Amino acid sequence: TANKKLLVLPGDGIGPEVMREVGRVVGWLGRERGVRFDISEDLVGGASVDAYGVPIRDEVVAAAKAADAVLFGAVGGPKWKDVPFELRPEVAILRLRQELELFANLRPATVLDPLVDASTLKPDVVRGLDIMIVRETVGGIYFGEPRGIEDLPGGGQRGINTEIYTTSEIERVARVAFDLARVRGGKLCSVEKSNVMESGLLWKQVVTALGERDYPDVELSHMLADNCAMQLVRNPRQFDVIVTGNLFGDLLSDLASMLTGSLGMLPSATLGGVLPDGRRPALYEPIHGSAPDIAGTRQANPLAQILSFAMLLRYSLKMEAEAAMIEAACTRVLSSGLRTADIMSPGMARVSTSVMGEAVLREL
Amino acid sequence: TANKKLLVLPGDGIGPEVMREVGRVVGWLGRERGVRFDISEDLVGGASVDAYGVPIRDEVVAAAKAADAVLFGAVGGPKWKDVPFELRPEVAILRLRQELELFANLRPATVLDPLVDASTLKPDVVRGLDIMIVRETVGGIYFGEPRGIEDLPGGGQRGINTEIYTTSEIERVARVAFDLARVRGGKLCSVEKSNVMESGLLWKQVVTALGERDYPDVELSHMLADNCAMQLVRNPRQFDVIVTGNLFGDLLSDLASMLTGSLGMLPSATLGGVLPDGRRPALYEPIHGSAPDIAGTRQANPLAQILSFAMLLRYSLKMEAEAAMIEAACTRVLSSGLRTADIMSPGMARVSTSVMGEAVLREL
Ligand SMILES: CC(C)[C@H](C(=O)O)[C@@H](O)C(=O)O
Ligand SMILES: CC(C)[C@H](C(=O)O)[C@@H](O)C(=O)O
Repeated sequence: TANKKLLVLPGDGIGPEVMREVGRVVGWLGRERGVRFDISEDLVGGASVDAYGVPIRDEVVAAAKAADAVLFGAVGGPKWKDVPFELRPEVAILRLRQELELFANLRPATVLDPLVDASTLKPDVVRGLDIMIVRETVGGIYFGEPRGIEDLPGGGQRGINTEIYTTSEIERVARVAFDLARVRGGKLCSVEKSNVMESGLLWKQVVTALGERDYPDVELSHMLADNCAMQLVRNPRQFDVIVTGNLFGDLLSDLASMLTGSLGMLPSATLGGVLPDGRRPALYEPIHGSAPDIAGTRQANPLAQILSFAMLLRYSLKMEAEAAMIEAACTRVLSSGLRTADIMSPGMARVSTSVMGEAVLREL
Repeated sequence: TANKKLLVLPGDGIGPEVMREVGRVVGWLGRERGVRFDISEDLVGGASVDAYGVPIRDEVVAAAKAADAVLFGAVGGPKWKDVPFELRPEVAILRLRQELELFANLRPATVLDPLVDASTLKPDVVRGLDIMIVRETVGGIYFGEPRGIEDLPGGGQRGINTEIYTTSEIERVARVAFDLARVRGGKLCSVEKSNVMESGLLWKQVVTALGERDYPDVELSHMLADNCAMQLVRNPRQFDVIVTGNLFGDLLSDLASMLTGSLGMLPSATLGGVLPDGRRPALYEPIHGSAPDIAGTRQANPLAQILSFAMLLRYSLKMEAEAAMIEAACTRVLSSGLRTADIMSPGMARVSTSVMGEAVLREL
């Protein structure tokens, strides 16, 4: 069988630094597990704006489509704060989501025992936390038309965005969530604002019908988005899998991540549907940003990027064993007391990005 | 001068129970401070659906318009879970907001010292917390057209909602927030998703221009809504006043409330603009819901309703002294160790709704 094709897009800020550490794990896979990849790398985000005048080139989108999976770093920074709306670094990720139809963003929020004190929440509230948020990522208000800013006849302006969800858009992402719930804790909570938004009402109806039809074994519940924001703070361990739209998912998944107190640890996957040729487009990225303030200072935590690569092995390449080995290696490194600056706590040994990467390799 | 006219709308669940305790404070104002009100009371929410077939009657809306202020309880409950969309108990509050043009929802999130342990966050993170969230409440996706659910030609359906914000809608709510920032900590953070939504981009531009023009003394910052959800968990005390749109405000203000761990303590005000006759429409309500599960069990905490009444005195009747006396009385009751079930902690004395109300009266 041919080598798997990976497209690596490190992006801006700490993106390239943390991506470098993934290289060690790729090396280990080749040496010890006989797994080889065809890897190509390109610019996205601000780096691409600087080099090519656009946040992502058509060739890069085409390469992403042709790849078995995309490993993404992070984009953005103060340097591109005032570029025109269509040149924002974020456009790179928005375009990849849309053109590859990456509709299901999987955002785990897990608290590893060695890091339970990193949270601003009391240890008893977050110990053992293990939530999976499934966020819809190619629909809703992010892409709906009409949109824009227009001048009003009497003076002043008007900004418009449109939230649209269709039955099939809701069904396909809900299916991903139901499937995950089945292999996890068996519970799915669907989140919307059906009390004020018709798009949320349709969301609730479609998820309910799908559950009754195809997933009677999964315990389905519904929650309003405002209540969900509260419940995540009050008692986050009540949740197993959460499924929600693009905009609510943006806020709620970031909120859930912050409950862990260690953003530098959290990976994510964004999946499309299975194509006629059997491939399934997928992009993996850490949930942290490009952190321009610490870029180049060797402080960045590479674990989220390494764990994103582990998710890539699991979901895109069906290499569950290797994914689990990498995850276990990361946990052992933490248990041994090594910490990057972001998760440093008294009594631990503070290490740089590359020392952390080496430590993971050693544990492997 | 004529007595001030109050419209009291207790609503459903624990609404009537906690409203009853406000009566004691009203009595004290009459006896000790010579302040008398013309109070009328009516049904809203599920109670109104049951009695009149609608969640709020036109007469009640008219009475609200004629009043100097509205004191609202809470609406909703499982009994009305499956009523048609236009009969939801929530319609009562949505219609009052819209018809009275109550565009600025003020949501304080404060942690009183005696309750610092009620939070799921570590005491060091929330001690002394004092945030004011100003949420726009008559615009945005809650009311924008087109909206609805429609059948698609090929089968399936499509749910649509529209987010619209105009320059003047943004300006008037931002002004309320800037004015509050001025008399508080001097800092305002404006929250939107200007990186993906044009309505958010306009929001940011309008707030920026208003700040430069009329509030150069207020320190203005901007934050994306997803980041704000994270920052509220990571370090909530970085905020003074936050201003944001209807939908983000719904989630973020509930999130901020939950940081305090004591929803039963938190009041809110929703203000309109000053009318030609000098009156300013206003509605005051606790942020907790109707809690149907504990209704009738005498466990409900009446303090949020009492503190909402204190806000009414402050903002609608300019009775700052009395408002502060009521707030201080509530704090003293807590310091003396009395707790309703929701804020109970070891070593404290658990009391019923009415005992808590009596205790506040005694402290007055
Ligand atoms: C980069 C940006 C467009 C994006 C979003 O809002 O979806 C980010 O916040 C995320 O969650 O991936
Ligand atoms: C009752 C409901 C319509 C409402 C909202 O979503 O605005 C509630 O959550 C609130 O925050 O007051």
